[in-house]
Amino acid sequence: MRIGIVAPSCTLDATIPARLADLARTSLGDSAPEFVVHPQCFLSEGHFAGPDQARIDALVELANDDSIDAIWFARGGYGACRVAEPAIRAMGPAARNKLYLGYSDAGFLLAGLYARGIGRVAHGPMPSDLNRDGGDAAVLRGLDWLLNPAKPTVSLEAHGQLHLAPPLTGPLNTYAAFNLTVFSQLLGTPLQPDLTDHILMIEEVGEYMYRIDRSLFHITSNPHVRRVAGISLGRCTAVPENDPDFVLDEVAITKHWCVVSGIPWLGRADIGHDAANTVVPFG
Amino acid sequence: MRIGIVAPSCTLDATIPARLADLARTSLGDSAPEFVVHPQCFLSEGHFAGPDQARIDALVELANDDSIDAIWFARGGYGACRVAEPAIRAMGPAARNKLYLGYSDAGFLLAGLYARGIGRVAHGPMPSDLNRDGGDAAVLRGLDWLLNPAKPTVSLEAHGQLHLAPPLTGPLNTYAAFNLTVFSQLLGTPLQPDLTDHILMIEEVGEYMYRIDRSLFHITSNPHVRRVAGISLGRCTAVPENDPDFVLDEVAITKHWCVVSGIPWLGRADIGHDAANTVVPFG
Repeated sequence: MRIGIVAPSCTLDATIPARLADLARTSLGDSAPEFVVHPQCFLSEGHFAGPDQARIDALVELANDDSIDAIWFARGGYGACRVAEPAIRAMGPAARNKLYLGYSDAGFLLAGLYARGIGRVAHGPMPSDLNRDGGDAAVLRGLDWLLNPAKPTVSLEAHGQLHLAPPLTGPLNTYAAFNLTVFSQLLGTPLQPDLTDHILMIEEVGEYMYRIDRSLFHITSNPHVRRVAGISLGRCTAVPENDPDFVLDEVAITKHWCVVSGIPWLGRADIGHDAANTVVPFG
Repeated sequence: MRIGIVAPSCTLDATIPARLADLARTSLGDSAPEFVVHPQCFLSEGHFAGPDQARIDALVELANDDSIDAIWFARGGYGACRVAEPAIRAMGPAARNKLYLGYSDAGFLLAGLYARGIGRVAHGPMPSDLNRDGGDAAVLRGLDWLLNPAKPTVSLEAHGQLHLAPPLTGPLNTYAAFNLTVFSQLLGTPLQPDLTDHILMIEEVGEYMYRIDRSLFHITSNPHVRRVAGISLGRCTAVPENDPDFVLDEVAITKHWCVVSGIPWLGRADIGHDAANTVVPFG
């Protein structure tokens, strides 16, 4: 098992690769995969892990490499929307037979890959999560999916919320997960996937409550998004204080827009910008 | 001339109506219009100038009042996306024979009204601009359009940028103007207007440069937006410091996405969250 690591958004902390390899060896022994960390991860140009073209080239190089089984996005930040379309256009047959794992800004890539049916895509922990409290568990959870992608990782039952679900028209085991802002910002672009009958899980970090409300207006007003089986709300953390107090919390807001749009409210999802972030394979 | 004032977003400073009436009397004498300030402007519920239904009802009441010639949105903030669709649905014939003026969060209403061909819509100063340095001039500029809507207020020549324009396929005098984030957040919703062959002016305030970049990815990747005659960039002010430095400024960013999308770059526009904000009538 060889896992390629690239950074389509921001520069990776240079200590991560050794810590990741140590963690995998300690936890998995001989079953530990080989990590192929592309040197692009450590480039820096302004906000990004190198120029757009360097980030495109690194991703395409690893995606098109038959000897690599999975692409693990190194971290989020911002920048994947600048590389997603050209990179995906340049992907060949080897890219289709791969796993892709990440979240946050990497959602632009998860969306675009899923929209084109390239590989198996999941929303979940990334190597940079090692820098979180409890990050080892998060990274091992991500690694577990990369090593055992057929193992079920998510269900409404596991999220403890099935009792909240109204009757669903679609299958109960079809998921997609995104950061709310990232999902909002890819709607209407070629990266937008068809999520008909999917349980759409969303999470947010560092956004004012009024922006969460505005993004929920945006996504639930989209006629394509209205075809989802329902919305399940992950954690919204590090919400700056609203002045004046917004009064409504993220649950009340999501329920409001579910009522307005007719999208079923499916309760909470166990995802977020934290160490407990579960793996949500798409589809 | 009777101008109705409502607040679809946040609560209006209670001192504004008297100051507005004084300014109009001082500057215009007997030509000063009558201002019909709806009491809803001073309601407060959490973030908003009253509950959604109160804001909807106030707007619909004034829009459907034949004795009122224009609706002047009191101020921005956040909240118009919660009232725009239900309010516009409830508008009758009297609403069609009116002017509508505002900017910032009021862009949700400008968009939805323009999308349905209701009234004459313009992006420009609002009563709350009296609280800006130099705000009197801004408010008088807005008032001048409300009193003389046939007078030309905007042109690429006036913006000093016509020499930058590549050959345009559409008419040279068809405009629309929006706050960038507001425009991004209404794409794909029923509020999105057809801006084919329009010169699209955008401005921004208080957003990180990486968010300006992300919003420009979003709007320029939209196939409907790609039919505009070109993009003209207003002022981007109060941009928080990016860590690390984003390197690219708003002009470089907009030019980048114009190149990627094939949308002509039309230079700068004289709009923004400031006292110099010009009036841009749509169409």
